Amino acid sequence: MEQSLDLNSLFNPKNIAIVGASSNPGSISGQFLRYLKRYEFKGPIYPVNPRHQEISGLPCFPSVSAIPERVDLAICVVPNQGVTQVVEECTEKGVGYLMIPSTGFAEASAEGARLQKRLTEIARSGRTRLLGPNCMGFINFKDGVVASFGAFLESPKDLGAGNIAFVSQSGLLGARVVRRCVSRGLGLTYEVSTGNEADIESLDFIEYLLGDPQTKVIGALIESVKSGPRLLALGRRAQELGKIIVVLKAGKSSVGLEAISSHTGRLSSAAQIYRGVFRQAGIVEARTFNELCLALEAFSTLEKLPEEVRLAVVVGSGGNGVLIADLAEELGVALAELPAETQASIASLIPEAGSCRNPIDVTAQVTHNQPDKLRQVVELLAQEKSVTSMIVGVNHRCLSQCWTDLIRIAEASGKLMGVTVSSDVPTEIKEGLKKSGRILLSEDAEELLSMFKPVSDRAKLVRRGSEHAPESWQEKNYALAALTGAETTEFRVKKLLSPYVPVPRGDLARSADEAVAIAERLGYPVAMKLSAPGLRHKTEAGAVKLNVGGATEVGRIFAELKDGRASFGPGSGVLVEEMAGSGVEVIVGFLRSKELGPIVMFGSGGILVELVRDTTYRAIPLARAEAEAMIEESLCFKLLKGFRGQTAKDLNALADGIVQASRIFLANPWINEMEFNPVAVLDEGRGIKILDALVVPGDG
Amino acid sequence: MEQSLDLNSLFNPKNIAIVGASSNPGSISGQFLRYLKRYEFKGPIYPVNPRHQEISGLPCFPSVSAIPERVDLAICVVPNQGVTQVVEECTEKGVGYLMIPSTGFAEASAEGARLQKRLTEIARSGRTRLLGPNCMGFINFKDGVVASFGAFLESPKDLGAGNIAFVSQSGLLGARVVRRCVSRGLGLTYEVSTGNEADIESLDFIEYLLGDPQTKVIGALIESVKSGPRLLALGRRAQELGKIIVVLKAGKSSVGLEAISSHTGRLSSAAQIYRGVFRQAGIVEARTFNELCLALEAFSTLEKLPEEVRLAVVVGSGGNGVLIADLAEELGVALAELPAETQASIASLIPEAGSCRNPIDVTAQVTHNQPDKLRQVVELLAQEKSVTSMIVGVNHRCLSQCWTDLIRIAEASGKLMGVTVSSDVPTEIKEGLKKSGRILLSEDAEELLSMFKPVSDRAKLVRRGSEHAPESWQEKNYALAALTGAETTEFRVKKLLSPYVPVPRGDLARSADEAVAIAERLGYPVAMKLSAPGLRHKTEAGAVKLNVGGATEVGRIFAELKDGRASFGPGSGVLVEEMAGSGVEVIVGFLRSKELGPIVMFGSGGILVELVRDTTYRAIPLARAEAEAMIEESLCFKLLKGFRGQTAKDLNALADGIVQASRIFLANPWINEMEFNPVAVLDEGRGIKILDALVVPGDG
Repeated sequence: MEQSLDLNSLFNPKNIAIVGASSNPGSISGQFLRYLKRYEFKGPIYPVNPRHQEISGLPCFPSVSAIPERVDLAICVVPNQGVTQVVEECTEKGVGYLMIPSTGFAEASAEGARLQKRLTEIARSGRTRLLGPNCMGFINFKDGVVASFGAFLESPKDLGAGNIAFVSQSGLLGARVVRRCVSRGLGLTYEVSTGNEADIESLDFIEYLLGDPQTKVIGALIESVKSGPRLLALGRRAQELGKIIVVLKAGKSSVGLEAISSHTGRLSSAAQIYRGVFRQAGIVEARTFNELCLALEAFSTLEKLPEEVRLAVVVGSGGNGVLIADLAEELGVALAELPAETQASIASLIPEAGSCRNPIDVTAQVTHNQPDKLRQVVELLAQEKSVTSMIVGVNHRCLSQCWTDLIRIAEASGKLMGVTVSSDVPTEIKEGLKKSGRILLSEDAEELLSMFKPVSDRAKLVRRGSEHAPESWQEKNYALAALTGAETTEFRVKKLLSPYVPVPRGDLARSADEAVAIAERLGYPVAMKLSAPGLRHKTEAGAVKLNVGGATEVGRIFAELKDGRASFGPGSGVLVEEMAGSGVEVIVGFLRSKELGPIVMFGSGGILVELVRDTTYRAIPLARAEAEAMIEESLCFKLLKGFRGQTAKDLNALADGIVQASRIFLANPWINEMEFNPVAVLDEGRGIKILDALVVPGDG
Repeated sequence: MEQSLDLNSLFNPKNIAIVGASSNPGSISGQFLRYLKRYEFKGPIYPVNPRHQEISGLPCFPSVSAIPERVDLAICVVPNQGVTQVVEECTEKGVGYLMIPSTGFAEASAEGARLQKRLTEIARSGRTRLLGPNCMGFINFKDGVVASFGAFLESPKDLGAGNIAFVSQSGLLGARVVRRCVSRGLGLTYEVSTGNEADIESLDFIEYLLGDPQTKVIGALIESVKSGPRLLALGRRAQELGKIIVVLKAGKSSVGLEAISSHTGRLSSAAQIYRGVFRQAGIVEARTFNELCLALEAFSTLEKLPEEVRLAVVVGSGGNGVLIADLAEELGVALAELPAETQASIASLIPEAGSCRNPIDVTAQVTHNQPDKLRQVVELLAQEKSVTSMIVGVNHRCLSQCWTDLIRIAEASGKLMGVTVSSDVPTEIKEGLKKSGRILLSEDAEELLSMFKPVSDRAKLVRRGSEHAPESWQEKNYALAALTGAETTEFRVKKLLSPYVPVPRGDLARSADEAVAIAERLGYPVAMKLSAPGLRHKTEAGAVKLNVGGATEVGRIFAELKDGRASFGPGSGVLVEEMAGSGVEVIVGFLRSKELGPIVMFGSGGILVELVRDTTYRAIPLARAEAEAMIEESLCFKLLKGFRGQTAKDLNALADGIVQASRIFLANPWINEMEFNPVAVLDEGRGIKILDALVVPGDG
């Protein structure tokens, strides 16, 4: 959990020891040696193995301590049972970094996990930092240091450095990203596999890479992170620096939620919670490996990113145009609406068979044989305010006659372009287009559109601006007296919360007479609910009666509620409350995640949340703007805004309520789960009412 | 609308005339000539142009009539204004097929549409059949007839025939499919672009291709079809023949719905309606161009398709495994659940760091260096009942040592496989694997999974079996006396429908006294609703009162409902009805589409249908099994089955109701739209109740 780690001497070590070096060139250690040499590592390499005098022409040392100078990086390639001793030796010698590709640790078994914990303890007794175990090492493309293994290192002869860094626990996925980047002509700065993260973790690398001037785009495959707040801080720092983090979240595994007994817990999945936290951090999320790679390519290639993506698409076939329009809708990328005059100007340029509505079908005649017409259409679009970016589908022959025009137009207008390039397009044209820093290339227009998707997503995140950083919270003011499990009746919980969030007026009745007295005080109709410790799913259990209209009815229902139950113990009673006005019902829930800390969930109420999992998440503390964003991301936003002639609901009060409740949850670590369900959002200006509230103490 | 068309002499003509032939080799006509020659068309080619004696060494004819024999195929490459005359000449000469690539017809303008209509009329006065206009022609890969143009015809030298046919209106998309197939080593039978379909349409080609013994898979890009029933019939015929149709529906354009005034109309999109009809027809739908191509590849390659897809996935990295699991969930492809014993057997084979749960991480050690271990794992999975198909991620060196084993295992077990092959895998190995007819190949496991998706979708469609063909319906028995717009009050409509579908008991009251009398007859509580011509959105308008509990209240509410309205005209009154029991509310709606005929919609009631468009569609007539499928496809199926402790609802009565109502809609062409909303689905055995019914006559 160090706040910052200088990884320079890991990535660019003066020397490297290979502990457990073998004379077999096909072994892991043999591969490390081979690739270090192949990519011309400049410093000395020290094989360590008491059974050899020499390996691959290098003098071999009997132990790490026998190496005659300080060691910046040692690579430990002994079987797992021998790793402990190597860590001890390296720690004693004061080795800077120890990389452990060996497997059989936490990823394999409980025994392995114990072994791994031991490694961390030994290393932390000194100053040696560990990478791994179960990692595949790293590649430093900038300085040509390849401390990794695998067949993917056979093909690229020289490592063209670029501006993409990639971090993942899995080394094979890193290798796939490297291969893909190389095949698409993209350069990297670093690739690193962190394995089991016994010591140094992905976020350490992301932090280091944010400080690296050559790295512009950081890709990460994230299975889990150790600290939600740190992830958020790094996401914000990236935005300040104008750098981009793209993550692919792998796995539907748990987020380390503690034992859960609420709706909220049952409804929540790790992927959804991470999605909310990524958004909060301003981090672009890819949904698949392919999306990740396309995002890295887009951000690596484009030098300046637009504040908003509104695409104009120029294609040579109407059929292609509709496919593009469909895909744009699916991806959530906005197509520009062209003004009538612009459409008319385009119509005057293209054959009758074309279409001047975006996606613009200029016909194959133009994309194949009329570079001049194509250029004119593109120029018109470049001048158009409603357009921030363009996709141009063009045949290779036509492109060879107009590619310099396209660069010129992109540069003059400051707009971005995606251009289709078939395999027939000469390399120099492709290179020229790409070098402009404004033009994306792909064999097909759909893929170009998919590259604009992360650009569009990122623009949306940036537009929310700096509002998303929460003000500092005075949580202590929200500390509440802790309840035990036996005390958590609806009545007690609402009473506890009532100074901070709006609950309906009401009181607890222990007898029918008391119930009538309360009802008369409140005015009819009233709501009557059984209030007892641990009572959940009250509606299903028939423990809620609404719209009770008179004294006789109150008496009858009191008896019904009381007699229907086996236990009507000391804390129990019937809660008599005012009826809330008519509103839209939503759910606001709170959980604690071991990985991400306290989490707030917002979602549609009732059936909707159950059937379509309409929920959004944020880490706490959150800014008010984030509470608003959560509301806007949910399906029920349509209802809240006023659906089909209904009046708009009090969105302000709802956002306030989410923030207030989050403060309470943060200030009261004794609460393990908290859930307001339903919350009635009343008409604008009338606020919200928390109709039911559940609090689960940490011990319950 | 011919029922069957012999397209042999189009696809394999004895001779071809090119009308409007030009001496410019870059022109469209020049390209036709060039590619006919390049791909060695065997018959005579007759250029027609009065201004030339000879073109490209061929004698040129002054007119079609001057050609000294019957012409099987003429290609018309004159500008649109001259096309009429060519059609006249060809019809007179009795040319078999006339292909018209010329543009400027219905796709361009209203004037063009008129011109196009004229072409059809002229041709139909004789026997000449038209392909196009605005089409790009066809390729017959079996006989090497290339009557098309475009740069994509430059690269493949010989046309390796295969078993895929592709039909689309857009020629450029056809060209993309051809290019993609060639690059993936897949062969085609035919590719045809139908353009504006002035005469021969996509469905004619699909019908022909179903009869072609070499064609196994038919891909189609569908913008619209002219006849829903024919599409359904062709889909069923394909299933009978064991052939597969894969469609990509392009465009969110309308489906030619007539003027709509119901909810149903407002909720429905062309894409959704087509989706329902494709399912009903047993046609596999792809969502993107890439999905279409992957589906064609899968169905073309695999010789025998499984009855169900339950995949086991073997990969070399845990990270890759979770990505695969996530993607499988997203695509709806089932991963097999391995029994504990099988997991234990696998665990005994692989390194400790691996994982024996599906997706199985055998570790890179195995996928890279231990072909024998990999073979043993695959063999175990092949013997496993819960597994029908496998994806095997394997390194190229390892593959070269075990590929024959994989073929043997696939053949012996009858199971399908997907195998990853990098560019380093020698061609003979790839060919060998593919030739087995059981193994799909791709560079990455995600793509293999995406290829298994259409296989899984198709298996689901086939499992529904032949139940999906409707019995013949005696619709006449359901003919109702037509109502005028002014007569379509809720009361009249329900009365009209009551012999066929369940509506609540009730009667129309014109006075408060009448209302009380009806209520007493029915028993309290009752529902009271204003019933007036054209009155819609009653709930929003406050014209519905539920749970009215006594005579005084009935009287008061009668006055309220009557006085609240400006018009309480002759047909109007207050409908007093029994309250339906508690149930799940759904919507059943009916529309007429010019393209697809009568359509039934089923969906969730209330907010759900509005917010998440939870609707499914079928063409009418439909089988009862299709009504059941509609219910199962909807989100509210969860509710109907009995959600969270609720009792299950009467699914049988609901399916019956959907079928009955569909019969009524089919038998009464005077009804343009019909909508039952809400329909209460009561507890099992208690049936359904149509709480509100709307009928819109064709003139209203």
